[in-house]
Amino acid sequence: MNTATPALTVGLGDRSYPIFIGDGLLGDAALLGGLLAGPRGVRKIAVVTNDIVGPLHAPRLQAAWATARGADASAPLLEIVLPDGERHKTLETVSRIIDALVANRFARDDLIVALGGGVVGDMAGFAAACYQRGIGFVQMPTTLLAQVDSSVGGKTGVNHPGGKNLIGAFHQPQAVVTDTATLRTLPPRELRAGLAEVVKHALICDAELFAWLEANADALLALDPAALAHAVRRCCAIKAGIVARDERETGERALLNLGHTFGHAIETVTGYGPWLHGEAVAVGLAMATGMSQRAGWLPAADAARLDALLARLGLRTEARGSVTPEAARAAMRLDKKVRDGRVRLVLLKGIGQAFLSDDWPTDAFDATLAAHLS
Amino acid sequence: MNTATPALTVGLGDRSYPIFIGDGLLGDAALLGGLLAGPRGVRKIAVVTNDIVGPLHAPRLQAAWATARGADASAPLLEIVLPDGERHKTLETVSRIIDALVANRFARDDLIVALGGGVVGDMAGFAAACYQRGIGFVQMPTTLLAQVDSSVGGKTGVNHPGGKNLIGAFHQPQAVVTDTATLRTLPPRELRAGLAEVVKHALICDAELFAWLEANADALLALDPAALAHAVRRCCAIKAGIVARDERETGERALLNLGHTFGHAIETVTGYGPWLHGEAVAVGLAMATGMSQRAGWLPAADAARLDALLARLGLRTEARGSVTPEAARAAMRLDKKVRDGRVRLVLLKGIGQAFLSDDWPTDAFDATLAAHLS
Repeated sequence: MNTATPALTVGLGDRSYPIFIGDGLLGDAALLGGLLAGPRGVRKIAVVTNDIVGPLHAPRLQAAWATARGADASAPLLEIVLPDGERHKTLETVSRIIDALVANRFARDDLIVALGGGVVGDMAGFAAACYQRGIGFVQMPTTLLAQVDSSVGGKTGVNHPGGKNLIGAFHQPQAVVTDTATLRTLPPRELRAGLAEVVKHALICDAELFAWLEANADALLALDPAALAHAVRRCCAIKAGIVARDERETGERALLNLGHTFGHAIETVTGYGPWLHGEAVAVGLAMATGMSQRAGWLPAADAARLDALLARLGLRTEARGSVTPEAARAAMRLDKKVRDGRVRLVLLKGIGQAFLSDDWPTDAFDATLAAHLS
Repeated sequence: MNTATPALTVGLGDRSYPIFIGDGLLGDAALLGGLLAGPRGVRKIAVVTNDIVGPLHAPRLQAAWATARGADASAPLLEIVLPDGERHKTLETVSRIIDALVANRFARDDLIVALGGGVVGDMAGFAAACYQRGIGFVQMPTTLLAQVDSSVGGKTGVNHPGGKNLIGAFHQPQAVVTDTATLRTLPPRELRAGLAEVVKHALICDAELFAWLEANADALLALDPAALAHAVRRCCAIKAGIVARDERETGERALLNLGHTFGHAIETVTGYGPWLHGEAVAVGLAMATGMSQRAGWLPAADAARLDALLARLGLRTEARGSVTPEAARAAMRLDKKVRDGRVRLVLLKGIGQAFLSDDWPTDAFDATLAAHLS
């Protein structure tokens, strides 16, 4: 592909931004030189990454940057290396990023690059949102989950002991650079967790993608580059469309929370450690479909198709032994989707047909908690 | 006045909001009942205040709320009481506000009220900006400085040891309720500090207000209600107009930083304690006019008028013995107005005629630092 041409654009008026998708983009000096240098050509750049991803991918980025700048002999990219893992997605860690920006005298027209998965992107983005009331940032997602979901759309933030992503901001990146080559170093467990978000996009609004996933599950698990690229592109297109129509989640965008109200409860109750985000979302998807079926809104065959697909992808559909129904209920009371004390859920009328409801049958909700948790 | 009619409106499309100004508004049950109850009538309300202002004014607010709710027998307003003072305007204190919101299960459609001066408003507003990626808040400023300046315009944030307001967000309030009766309990030093921001507004764009200040300095210092109300209304009108035209400070709004680049440096160097914000701004105004005069842009008579007015208001025009030129220079390098390594300053061509410049004579800058600092 011609890397100078974005695969997609997120249309948000004067804050629109391109999504570049391709194999090897982190080493593409021409692309990075243009993107990172900015309109004036001189600025500081901080690469926020973690202690797993940084050693794997930052050297390629540094080399491409050195090539791009050439005779300019510009300083190397500043690396801010965070500890790996969702349990470090806290205000304290963001404070450390800001300390580093202050210590290196970053100004409003300097740039932050998020190199890593969803945790790195959420924290780097939130630091960019808050530092000097907002500086620019570029997402360079290196996990499937971040590539298909969290790097697009401008949701940034951190967890609070009381709940997932309770502190944050909407702050759109200036660009997303998705190098699908990074998926080749992804641990299988992370790959499966990312596939849960691919399944989510299909369930929400793309029955064709769902059928494609059923046909291509093995190729995806085997890291087939063409299959992965197709999944990334399709999910980014779905999400870019939804975000362009409803940036601040006043309506349609809430559909992207399918499986997340249940999933966040699992993560909150278990303390952001044992369950990867995507793993918890997979259980949440199974719970949302199970509940939709119990409420009489979703054909049993559709719920069975989801369970079968998640099983083929090696994803659990219950969190028994990990989370009790009571603990999940308490965690959900603090969910951001609570309105007038009742949580608004994303449910399904069919595969590819998600809808929002705060008028769901309590017995279906209770039975779903009982069936998937203990 | 009819309290149901806002004195002014900040015009920002669907985020426009009213500014109510009047004597005794914190006890106005009809106004508060309508404003705080919200469209659905049921929500939680947290009053963020400090240990000085809370005891003085929160009881009146609670009583008015109880009257407004009447037979609804709604819960009292939750009070979140912070320690007083600019040195507590930190990410840690905002984290405490958020902890209280989480502990009390605040949701996205609940409300924060900032009852206090600029420090309380900046922190309550930043907590509102970040909690669940943004919940509503109402400003109830109780200091002159907050009433004429910081409560309007949506700048929220906290300080960092490396610089003033380095962490923050733009987040507009849903309303501003300014009870000028609160000024009667204001310590004289705080009153004078607030008057520095009134002088700033006049210097930027309102020569008539400047002349009025010269004629009414004694009335203001004597807490004359009509004089104070005039100053508050005039400043809010100026600021509302500027914010409506340039919310995100891409142009004209930067004029409101007159005196603040120098003032922030004084606050940063002295550690956010000995100098009140307005006191530091007064020195900054004198430095901006002094520098404008040295550069040949401002008539000496205008600079002399400012010095005389600040002296009559009991405000210092230099920070000698407190801040050295070298320390101020270092602090200014991290100012948010730095572009391409050079700080952009607000300077003057005349009283009421401020302009932005990043092409100022270095010798005028150096001489100004030497004249006002040591």
